[in-house]
Amino acid sequence: MTLLADLLSSVFERRFKTSSLLKRDGRSLDELANDLISASGEMSGLSLGQEILTRFQQLEDEEKLAFFHHLATSMNIDPETVRNTLDAYEQEPSQKTYRAFMHASEPDRQELIRRLNRLPGATEDLVRMRADLLRLGRKDPELKALDLDFQHLFQSWFNRGFLVLRPISWESPAHILEKIIAYEAVHAIDSWDDLRRRLEPADRRCFAFFHPSMPDEPLIFVEVALTKGVPSSIQALLREDREALAEEEADTAVFYSISNCQAGLASISFGNSLIKQVVSDLSMELGTLKTFVTLSPIPGLTRWLAEAGLEVRSGTDDSDQIRSLAAYYLLNAKRFNGLPFDPVARFHLGNGAIVHAVHAEADTSEKGKSQSLGAMVNYLYDLKSVSQNHEAFATKAEVISSGDVKSLASNAAKAKNSGKAV
Amino acid sequence: MTLLADLLSSVFERRFKTSSLLKRDGRSLDELANDLISASGEMSGLSLGQEILTRFQQLEDEEKLAFFHHLATSMNIDPETVRNTLDAYEQEPSQKTYRAFMHASEPDRQELIRRLNRLPGATEDLVRMRADLLRLGRKDPELKALDLDFQHLFQSWFNRGFLVLRPISWESPAHILEKIIAYEAVHAIDSWDDLRRRLEPADRRCFAFFHPSMPDEPLIFVEVALTKGVPSSIQALLREDREALAEEEADTAVFYSISNCQAGLASISFGNSLIKQVVSDLSMELGTLKTFVTLSPIPGLTRWLAEAGLEVRSGTDDSDQIRSLAAYYLLNAKRFNGLPFDPVARFHLGNGAIVHAVHAEADTSEKGKSQSLGAMVNYLYDLKSVSQNHEAFATKAEVISSGDVKSLASNAAKAKNSGKAV
Amino acid sequence: MTLLADLLSSVFERRFKTSSLLKRDGRSLDELANDLISASGEMSGLSLGQEILTRFQQLEDEEKLAFFHHLATSMNIDPETVRNTLDAYEQEPSQKTYRAFMHASEPDRQELIRRLNRLPGATEDLVRMRADLLRLGRKDPELKALDLDFQHLFQSWFNRGFLVLRPISWESPAHILEKIIAYEAVHAIDSWDDLRRRLEPADRRCFAFFHPSMPDEPLIFVEVALTKGVPSSIQALLREDREALAEEEADTAVFYSISNCQAGLASISFGNSLIKQVVSDLSMELGTLKTFVTLSPIPGLTRWLAEAGLEVRSGTDDSDQIRSLAAYYLLNAKRFNGLPFDPVARFHLGNGAIVHAVHAEADTSEKGKSQSLGAMVNYLYDLKSVSQNHEAFATKAEVISSGDVKSLASNAAKAKNSGKAV
Amino acid sequence: MTLLADLLSSVFERRFKTSSLLKRDGRSLDELANDLISASGEMSGLSLGQEILTRFQQLEDEEKLAFFHHLATSMNIDPETVRNTLDAYEQEPSQKTYRAFMHASEPDRQELIRRLNRLPGATEDLVRMRADLLRLGRKDPELKALDLDFQHLFQSWFNRGFLVLRPISWESPAHILEKIIAYEAVHAIDSWDDLRRRLEPADRRCFAFFHPSMPDEPLIFVEVALTKGVPSSIQALLREDREALAEEEADTAVFYSISNCQAGLASISFGNSLIKQVVSDLSMELGTLKTFVTLSPIPGLTRWLAEAGLEVRSGTDDSDQIRSLAAYYLLNAKRFNGLPFDPVARFHLGNGAIVHAVHAEADTSEKGKSQSLGAMVNYLYDLKSVSQNHEAFATKAEVISSGDVKSLASNAAKAKNSGKAV
Repeated sequence: MTLLADLLSSVFERRFKTSSLLKRDGRSLDELANDLISASGEMSGLSLGQEILTRFQQLEDEEKLAFFHHLATSMNIDPETVRNTLDAYEQEPSQKTYRAFMHASEPDRQELIRRLNRLPGATEDLVRMRADLLRLGRKDPELKALDLDFQHLFQSWFNRGFLVLRPISWESPAHILEKIIAYEAVHAIDSWDDLRRRLEPADRRCFAFFHPSMPDEPLIFVEVALTKGVPSSIQALLREDREALAEEEADTAVFYSISNCQAGLASISFGNSLIKQVVSDLSMELGTLKTFVTLSPIPGLTRWLAEAGLEVRSGTDDSDQIRSLAAYYLLNAKRFNGLPFDPVARFHLGNGAIVHAVHAEADTSEKGKSQSLGAMVNYLYDLKSVSQNHEAFATKAEVISSGDVKSLASNAAKAKNSGKAV
Repeated sequence: MTLLADLLSSVFERRFKTSSLLKRDGRSLDELANDLISASGEMSGLSLGQEILTRFQQLEDEEKLAFFHHLATSMNIDPETVRNTLDAYEQEPSQKTYRAFMHASEPDRQELIRRLNRLPGATEDLVRMRADLLRLGRKDPELKALDLDFQHLFQSWFNRGFLVLRPISWESPAHILEKIIAYEAVHAIDSWDDLRRRLEPADRRCFAFFHPSMPDEPLIFVEVALTKGVPSSIQALLREDREALAEEEADTAVFYSISNCQAGLASISFGNSLIKQVVSDLSMELGTLKTFVTLSPIPGLTRWLAEAGLEVRSGTDDSDQIRSLAAYYLLNAKRFNGLPFDPVARFHLGNGAIVHAVHAEADTSEKGKSQSLGAMVNYLYDLKSVSQNHEAFATKAEVISSGDVKSLASNAAKAKNSGKAV
Repeated sequence: MTLLADLLSSVFERRFKTSSLLKRDGRSLDELANDLISASGEMSGLSLGQEILTRFQQLEDEEKLAFFHHLATSMNIDPETVRNTLDAYEQEPSQKTYRAFMHASEPDRQELIRRLNRLPGATEDLVRMRADLLRLGRKDPELKALDLDFQHLFQSWFNRGFLVLRPISWESPAHILEKIIAYEAVHAIDSWDDLRRRLEPADRRCFAFFHPSMPDEPLIFVEVALTKGVPSSIQALLREDREALAEEEADTAVFYSISNCQAGLASISFGNSLIKQVVSDLSMELGTLKTFVTLSPIPGLTRWLAEAGLEVRSGTDDSDQIRSLAAYYLLNAKRFNGLPFDPVARFHLGNGAIVHAVHAEADTSEKGKSQSLGAMVNYLYDLKSVSQNHEAFATKAEVISSGDVKSLASNAAKAKNSGKAV
Repeated sequence: MTLLADLLSSVFERRFKTSSLLKRDGRSLDELANDLISASGEMSGLSLGQEILTRFQQLEDEEKLAFFHHLATSMNIDPETVRNTLDAYEQEPSQKTYRAFMHASEPDRQELIRRLNRLPGATEDLVRMRADLLRLGRKDPELKALDLDFQHLFQSWFNRGFLVLRPISWESPAHILEKIIAYEAVHAIDSWDDLRRRLEPADRRCFAFFHPSMPDEPLIFVEVALTKGVPSSIQALLREDREALAEEEADTAVFYSISNCQAGLASISFGNSLIKQVVSDLSMELGTLKTFVTLSPIPGLTRWLAEAGLEVRSGTDDSDQIRSLAAYYLLNAKRFNGLPFDPVARFHLGNGAIVHAVHAEADTSEKGKSQSLGAMVNYLYDLKSVSQNHEAFATKAEVISSGDVKSLASNAAKAKNSGKAV
């Protein structure tokens, strides 16, 4: 049996969960949380923790909000104590004074969350708890502060060194696969047959990150197509009746869909590691692969065009015009902070990819037409330059692109400047 | 392949490690650490982190000390900033002001350690780094404060919910077993044959806790003998030529040795979970087991007798006398804080066990004779009362014991009070 | 990696297969087979074998038949040689003369099949080859003789000691689960959702036998429902909106569907081992289970009633009447050889089960109504009496049943004898 | 859990074994065997089988011999029945007449062995039973005939398609590794430390064949050293204090020890597959490997020199002289059937290897000195020519060698012919 199987099948865990569910406890959830913080015994801590997690899941939204407010206020730092312990530490820095300061400057709710996490299976519950918090507490400054505590702990628990990359295939367990179907966010998977078409052929791959404490829950996954040459249409790539390529004939790996699975892990970044790891693994496995690109949506294009008051002329040269606009948008449309307007662009450029090529009539679905006039983009991952691209982007917000894309963009710029509707 | 196998065999990891080892870097270790803290890119962070971990391992003790001092001082909190951000937060509590306070009140070295931990295999390196810190920084208040940061993070990473209990058997991998030989701290394992005698027979068991990021390193392990009745001699229990008991004939499980494996995880407590988990698992597996006891050393007895000015009379009734003294010691010898003087007693009583029986001539080895006049003790784990015992001990330092042990102890008390040498 | 994973992922195997597919070979399939029989080198044997297996799969039915005839005639025993070697052996029994006789009395085609089986993955191909033989050679005495050679070898390769029982669950690989959907022969599985309803709930189980050389192909599987009391309706058992029972509340395990998966393994019996093994495993896992029954169709009932000229009166007491008839049929309807007319009855009684209860309106599907007037039967597996029941059935064709079923059957007998339409 | 783990840990199996061991049975072993042959029920067959296997293991050699004689005589074919069924088949070939002939021409003892093999774990018992037979029945023609039946079945059960190649490493289970120590037949492994030196360094490999029904028992294994250039001394290769080579620097894989593990599988050949599979796997794993050779003993050299009346002159040119003699011996010394005199040469040449180089002072151990004057030989496996070499050897007993070896041999021939002592 594997470590993980041990973890899961632990008889203790099941007995424990069951028995604790049967017990009634007169205390309120807030009281239970207070008691858990002050409990000295690990054993009683486990029962309290289980009771809290179980009860929380059964709460209505309003009750959940009330519980979050309890954490945010009653379990907050006490400024006075922080100041006093800080003074004492400054006066005489020692293990004792430092411990007192550490304790004072960290709110009790962090310790509460850590203690809850001691229970088998609790990590998943806590991720769901944060998803609730994000959903319910969007506008409340106190709850947004509380979320920083969750984020702080999750960043530590879900750090890259603890994550595991696993291939997802048609031989993967069904209970994992049904989550792939559910979580696919870019190009929806209609059915188990559709799923099989994305996993089983020799020229398809899928990889996901997992955390050892949540072995049944993918955190993020990427779908890959192996192709000859860089593809320019998602519908062509996913056509039902296409013939699979023998894997040794492929020269290109295309990342055509990346989906985050856990709302409760928002802004805990590991997506950039995913692609780089997959590029590295695939190039070891298949020596024939030379090019690693995405085939990505341009979700902000139409919206930006509208905001910018630009309009697309209909006519025979639609395609060229759309490609130029898309290239211009990707290279020049910026947010207040100088970063690209397009969220997908921010993700891949932030990873060290470059804007490689732009295609019209690349996504002819309703969604594709409406968000980007059917345009899509290839971001290119070149392991040799990825660090340096990343650095340029991170420090100077520099967007690197191919010559092709540059000329397309400058066409649009000229057209724009010449006053023509573009 | 399992999640963990993926983790380990990761091609990326190996390539990465190798290539980074070949690179030279002119910066000092302190500079590298500073750069890692300010690095924005994850990719460059990984190279920096690898460089730091690799270099650290090759340092002499003095250089390690210097590096620890760098962390302790240059990466410490800045009291002024803490005060300012605290004021700002108090004035207007918001996500932004709270984030600033959180950032200020946590020393950069914590973030450094977290970033180092992103590397595959880094957790093990960091545990070793803390072992160095504990070894080298015993007396230095700054380094003892620094250790609290390690402790804080390890408590979070090695929390019970992330640990996995695995049986260790003669079918376990040799590279794990050689660590069991190396780490056994109570009754040394002489050879592979000796090890086999502790693992292979039907009436022997061994269990260890592992962390998913250190799958080749046991954290703590316990050796178990299945017996008929409660044993009173470790030599009898481990006799080379004994006949193994059929497991269904056993009514008692004896925990005769518990060893912590990682110096770098000192005071990160998970030992108490271990025994309770094993009791629970064994009682599910073997319905015939009724009693769960230890056969434990009494490491502090001789020393305490000497300090207390008590002396053992030689004579025919040695055994009775030694048992009485041992019982008296276990129930009455206390530290300044009211807890038992004996460290092993503190561990098991803290887990909710009780002092069940005391035996003379139970450990006739040199070590046994010298530390406890050959006496040993059984602590009894009764799952029904373990929580309540624990609570009594944790809150009132109450030591619970069997009637037998109580009368033995009161004999000693009477003898002592009557002025007789005991 | 496991032994089996090694087996499957063997790089050698894949390379080997690919390369051999690209090679042309001018020889006919019959010639290749002849050459394989006379090949001395193992290496050339492997190429020849691969070529034969690959080519065979691409043949039209007529060509396959021709190949089977080649095996049946050109690779048959030579009676003269058998007689001569037998004489020699009888005259002087020695290793040499015995070897000559063994060789002469076994047709070359057996050695051919064994040599083909040396290739990785060949076992599956050979099972499919026999499926073709059974389909195409039904009426040809030569081919029926040839089938005995396949049967002889398969009996040896698929003997119980080589088979492995594995639970099938919603966590099983999708490529195995799709085969469960495809092979279910008793109560069809409509969709992946339907499959999930049979695997995921706490009160459902499924087990299959596998052969180590065909790890992706279940050989036979049984679906199990855990219930309170013995069920009397398959529709109630499989109702979509039912509530799952907690597994510890169940007292009965119901085998409601058993499906053979491989046409090419017809009459290679391992089904009886399956149920007994599952009874044994389940009773170890869940101590609360007291009763092990089937809920089985009575496929031959309507047909037999028609042949027997019996007719069911419509009316208010339909149910009683149908139960009596079914009971009568199960206990008394026999084939020429004295064994029960009903094939499902033969299977379970042959395993040592008894006829436990008979239900009307138990299968209200079209198929159920048409084959058995909606009646179903519970066969009871009582491990204590299963051997002895089996012996009675095997030696004396004795059908053992409960008192209830006996009285039902005798009602029918009386009605029949009293001349009433039953 | 894996298929194999299921197989092993099967609760049923254990219970079954235990219970059957407690039962007494008045019947003799011969009677039990007779009853097993005539048993119709599988269930009773299993108990009988278990009883036979258990009892057999406890027999003294004489009793085992008696049992073998029972199988050899009472369970032999009946020539009369063979003749009659053959006549009937010849007259009217049908499934029925063929079945009768098949049954008659196969002795009952084969069916007995097959039925015994239905028990979990029985394959291993039967392999041991044959080891007993080979040991005890060497000179008895009846028992040598009986052995052909074992051989016939084992050839089918242990065919290449069922075997699994597994790497053996320092991470392999200890209970497997202790068998490697025990079975090493060429260069003895002294201790666990010695074993570690052969498994753990980056430039060492070990591979073994396993059968799925005997997952704890290696069948044959090969030890491999990765080197730069072809080695010429076994002591240098195994030196304790050598530095391990980084695996990517190696250009040569050296098979320096091949050991058969199971006496009961004598003459069931799978050794040739082993090396070819390992060559194939290693060349996939490490692209830098260009040469695959053995470093093999020449066990027959001294003996043959003595028989040939040749004598080694002592003197300064010992080494050259010994190399010439060894080369001459390998190319020219033949058995009555034209195959090489040297058994190791027969094995590797039969696999398609060639005689590549001959070294003096290559094995300076006592054994090496005494069996081959310290000489060793490299056989070269070149995948491109291995089939063709094999064919030449198998059909024409042609020994292919390098130019070097040829000239060495011709030097010896000249010396010999010129009448000089060589």
